Amino acid sequence: MAGTVNPDLKKERENASFHPEKVTNFLYGGPGVVKRKRELESLVLNDPDFQSEDLNFLSREQQYETQMKKSILMVTKGEKLKITDFKDQLTYRSAVVGSDAPTFGVHVSMFLPTLYGQATQEQKDKWLKMAEKYAIIGTYAQTEMGHGTFLRGLETTATYDPTTQEFVINTPTITAYKWWPGGLGKSSNYCVLMAQLYIHGKSYGPHPFMVQIRSLQDHKPLPGVTVGDIGPKFGYNSVDNGFLAFNNVRIPRENMLMKYSRVEPDGTYVKPPSTKLAYGTMVQVRANIVMYSGVVLAKAVTIATRYSCVRRQSEMKPGHPEPQVLDYVTQQYKLFPYLAAAYAFWLTGQTMMSVYTTSSSQISKGDISVLPELHALSASLKALSSAAANVGMEECRLACGGHGYSHASGLPRLYTNATPASTAEGEHVVLMLQTARYLMKSYNQSLQGEKLAGSVAYLSGVQPVPAAGRTRNMLDLGVLCDAYRHRAARVVHETAAQLRSELQAGKDQADAWNATSVDLVKAATAHSQYFVVKNFAERLTDSTLDSSISDVLTRLCQLHALHGLVNNSGDFLEDGYLTGTDIRQARRHINALMAKLRPDAVALVDAFDFPDGILNSLLGRYDGNVYEHLLEWAKASPLNKTDVHQSYHKYLKPFLEANRAKL
Amino acid sequence: MAGTVNPDLKKERENASFHPEKVTNFLYGGPGVVKRKRELESLVLNDPDFQSEDLNFLSREQQYETQMKKSILMVTKGEKLKITDFKDQLTYRSAVVGSDAPTFGVHVSMFLPTLYGQATQEQKDKWLKMAEKYAIIGTYAQTEMGHGTFLRGLETTATYDPTTQEFVINTPTITAYKWWPGGLGKSSNYCVLMAQLYIHGKSYGPHPFMVQIRSLQDHKPLPGVTVGDIGPKFGYNSVDNGFLAFNNVRIPRENMLMKYSRVEPDGTYVKPPSTKLAYGTMVQVRANIVMYSGVVLAKAVTIATRYSCVRRQSEMKPGHPEPQVLDYVTQQYKLFPYLAAAYAFWLTGQTMMSVYTTSSSQISKGDISVLPELHALSASLKALSSAAANVGMEECRLACGGHGYSHASGLPRLYTNATPASTAEGEHVVLMLQTARYLMKSYNQSLQGEKLAGSVAYLSGVQPVPAAGRTRNMLDLGVLCDAYRHRAARVVHETAAQLRSELQAGKDQADAWNATSVDLVKAATAHSQYFVVKNFAERLTDSTLDSSISDVLTRLCQLHALHGLVNNSGDFLEDGYLTGTDIRQARRHINALMAKLRPDAVALVDAFDFPDGILNSLLGRYDGNVYEHLLEWAKASPLNKTDVHQSYHKYLKPFLEANRAKL
Repeated sequence: MAGTVNPDLKKERENASFHPEKVTNFLYGGPGVVKRKRELESLVLNDPDFQSEDLNFLSREQQYETQMKKSILMVTKGEKLKITDFKDQLTYRSAVVGSDAPTFGVHVSMFLPTLYGQATQEQKDKWLKMAEKYAIIGTYAQTEMGHGTFLRGLETTATYDPTTQEFVINTPTITAYKWWPGGLGKSSNYCVLMAQLYIHGKSYGPHPFMVQIRSLQDHKPLPGVTVGDIGPKFGYNSVDNGFLAFNNVRIPRENMLMKYSRVEPDGTYVKPPSTKLAYGTMVQVRANIVMYSGVVLAKAVTIATRYSCVRRQSEMKPGHPEPQVLDYVTQQYKLFPYLAAAYAFWLTGQTMMSVYTTSSSQISKGDISVLPELHALSASLKALSSAAANVGMEECRLACGGHGYSHASGLPRLYTNATPASTAEGEHVVLMLQTARYLMKSYNQSLQGEKLAGSVAYLSGVQPVPAAGRTRNMLDLGVLCDAYRHRAARVVHETAAQLRSELQAGKDQADAWNATSVDLVKAATAHSQYFVVKNFAERLTDSTLDSSISDVLTRLCQLHALHGLVNNSGDFLEDGYLTGTDIRQARRHINALMAKLRPDAVALVDAFDFPDGILNSLLGRYDGNVYEHLLEWAKASPLNKTDVHQSYHKYLKPFLEANRAKL
Repeated sequence: MAGTVNPDLKKERENASFHPEKVTNFLYGGPGVVKRKRELESLVLNDPDFQSEDLNFLSREQQYETQMKKSILMVTKGEKLKITDFKDQLTYRSAVVGSDAPTFGVHVSMFLPTLYGQATQEQKDKWLKMAEKYAIIGTYAQTEMGHGTFLRGLETTATYDPTTQEFVINTPTITAYKWWPGGLGKSSNYCVLMAQLYIHGKSYGPHPFMVQIRSLQDHKPLPGVTVGDIGPKFGYNSVDNGFLAFNNVRIPRENMLMKYSRVEPDGTYVKPPSTKLAYGTMVQVRANIVMYSGVVLAKAVTIATRYSCVRRQSEMKPGHPEPQVLDYVTQQYKLFPYLAAAYAFWLTGQTMMSVYTTSSSQISKGDISVLPELHALSASLKALSSAAANVGMEECRLACGGHGYSHASGLPRLYTNATPASTAEGEHVVLMLQTARYLMKSYNQSLQGEKLAGSVAYLSGVQPVPAAGRTRNMLDLGVLCDAYRHRAARVVHETAAQLRSELQAGKDQADAWNATSVDLVKAATAHSQYFVVKNFAERLTDSTLDSSISDVLTRLCQLHALHGLVNNSGDFLEDGYLTGTDIRQARRHINALMAKLRPDAVALVDAFDFPDGILNSLLGRYDGNVYEHLLEWAKASPLNKTDVHQSYHKYLKPFLEANRAKL
């Protein structure tokens, strides 16, 4: 069994029109990067210390404990192996935890960066080394039970007491309980706490404070601190997301993170120079989520595509053998648009990350002129990509039939761990409306004669609707980009008009905005979809792109653009920009593209280069030996430890015997 | 805390324009039915024996054991209480298990009905009483690891041995393992097995056999039988879905269920009179799933709507208090279309069930003329409603922000338990294509001059596209039904043309069908959406409908129709049947309808009448006391049994101490 590849999958790979390695290099940024990635992955996947029982077989407590053990190993081994580059660390980490999160996830992603970004030099000297060396474990406690999106709504208070030069921390209500921070429940002994600063009875808004919550001796909660786990969740059950409340907990004045705002010993408050700087981190986090959405979608598509070549089902022609399910055009229509979307978001994520890197040096020099656009772009792209990944992962699961429901498929765990990305760091509608606000502002500026630049330059003028009878080549990426551009510009234009008319009808700004908000979300969506399509098309003009793969990537790009167009055809038809004939042509092109992509489907998912140990799916195994492993896995699952379960003796036996006696 | 209702929810209920009890009576079929439903529910909800720890706190094994205990209680108490009516039993059952399934679910839903339907009188005498009295526990083993949809592809064999007058049962391959049957893994000692019948080396296709799989003495698997649980799943983890394999297991000839086909002692095979009769059951099962989809969607909408009135978030106007999130138009747009859809599918499910009941007496008299249409209708409606419920439940979860991810919300469990309905009993595309086949056949008959009747009568002629400039009232249900009707007829018409052109281009029937299948699914979808809209509108013409509720129900119907129209606007614009102006008008109407429905939202979900004990959601509590109970629940969860988790001593303490030593 081992070593042999399922003959159907073998044939798929033999028949591909290109070598997937070339696409892998394109996706990751060159052969050197791919080589390093594989080295790091194999350091984990070949290390017996990282093997553990399937998390799906464990209770939540056991999952937490297993993940803690692995996370500690990850840190200690990573140090020994001198994996110091940040990207290398992320690669190493994702090989350890797959689609799950490590115990110290928030310590690394939020606690440390907040100290870097918001602590003074003295504060860094005091805490940073301890934190970097994991002598203390920290988390970032902002969200409260009753308060998420709206930072100013936080209820936790930090009241300055000048007599002792301390802040007194309190949780005045149940809704003020800190809720959700990862690693807070059981693991962390420190946190950066966001609390409302009060001095001499006056409120100064939310500020960050360094607070110790558990004893360094015995890990018990410190006096006045109530802390625990928030209970089982849809996903991430190996992580101890926590709650936290304070009852008159006193911390020294020096524990407020004072790089920007300060409180002097006498209680004098010193304002920060600019509040916009924090946007930079937000842009980066959101760019990461765009990339992440591409990756999780790619994982789901990999699983479903490979399995659809192994699975044979029904009878297409009487007397013929059951075909591979991927030969059904309906199955292609379920998967290929998401295959294309995975590529589209992967490339969008890369672009966003490189734009961020380029801009961040500019920003660090104090030039924040680029921030509003970057912020607007990353907000809608984060919302768009994470929502698409949500829907796509579930479609991929459903495309696997019954076995998609089994944890052996890896899909339920992938989905439940990934779906929080669409709520965390800005909920879908909230983010789309942030982008819409920028679009409305830009559009109004262009009405006043200002020249728009960057991603909103196109808003300056809506292209005219072409005369009737004009025919288009709906496969032409230029034509498709133009169509997306026109649609975005038109929707922005009409939404602005709608907003104006609500204002003219006498509504105040807030009510008019609310009344128009469904259209505003639509405008931001159209804007971000245009960006994704255009970015995909632009990446294909890269002159270093190997000609043997540019054909197949062009097909993916065409499919992505056409599928979005057909799915939202009303938007393109509404003002007559496209015609019914165009849409019908688009549908025929989709069918033809799917037929051309069919022989390359497995190579296109192989190119994502997810090793089995990271994909964690028996359906998506590289060797396609699905059924043998499903059976083996099932037999190893906890309910099968004994042939007769103990509940038989406790409940079923007496029940059956009593019923038999009554016959 | 107890007894007081959250003031926001209280106000919502005071401001509703109608009394929810009237809608409850409408939804359930009269005050008598509602009264009985509540009696039965309170028998469970007030019974301390049925209380158990939250299943979400338990390991899979504990969940299985808890559910077993409850299921046995359900049977024994149900008998004592003389709950004999089938509908009453279902009500009682759903109060016991909520969104989960009882251990004996398949025993009741499949094992018993198969014996009723397919056993001879002698066989009934032998097994039925035992099965009815739970002296034996059975399941229905059809699906195999490698075979789902395609019954003829099953690999399990039953080979007749005339010398001993026995069937020899075998599982020839791994893909032939029976896989998925509920209750098979650990609980059942019998099953109805679907296996390929072989006599004298000749195959006669799949037939049902009664097979004992576990000893009645000690519950051990019988010799030659391999049986176990298939491992953890997305949902239904309290159920032991199982696998099953046979190695030369012999059963007497009399164990083949012989009401239709028979095998004589000498091996002579006697064919069944008609194979279509089995369709009747399928129609019923699918009608039930339509109803079920309405119910689970109603549960999700109830939770999200109530919570959206309790939750306050952000600042709509500077200085004003944080508004209830349901006051955001975008939140209404997330929830109200699903509120309307829940009503739409609830009413569609009722119609389907009553059509089935009316027809089944006809069918039982041997008149199966009505079956093809009933079958086609139920197939696409099952597919449409379960897919919409899937998407809608997740949208409702996402509309609850972070807390929607917590198992305390009830939404993850509701979703994972309900989503299998879109795969079980016919996968989405498979069912849509069954309906499409009927639509193509009917349409072609109409081309040949046959008069069509019933749900496809409208296919006889596509309405002409109205002249440009005609204005419509897009709120008029007649106008909306006409639009849906036109779109369905047009799509069927164009799909038939497409199918013909594929055939004319030289493809054989199978390839042409496959090439057109995406359009065929679209046609069946449009057909079923038309049915749902029309059925909703027709139910409103019921003259017994209380006038105080017909206004609000009409708004829901309008919203349902308009939302589907705007979401698929391309379909209505493509041939110019509707204009861009119509679509813009539709969008404005949606906004206006949502504003009118806003004050009635809570009353409309209250009307579904789900008691807290069945809804199982802290976010959706009737009294709205969300946050206090979230905290209480979290504190009771397993990771909080101790302040310091044991993993601290095992892993974290040595790690922290080593790191501190290195500083």
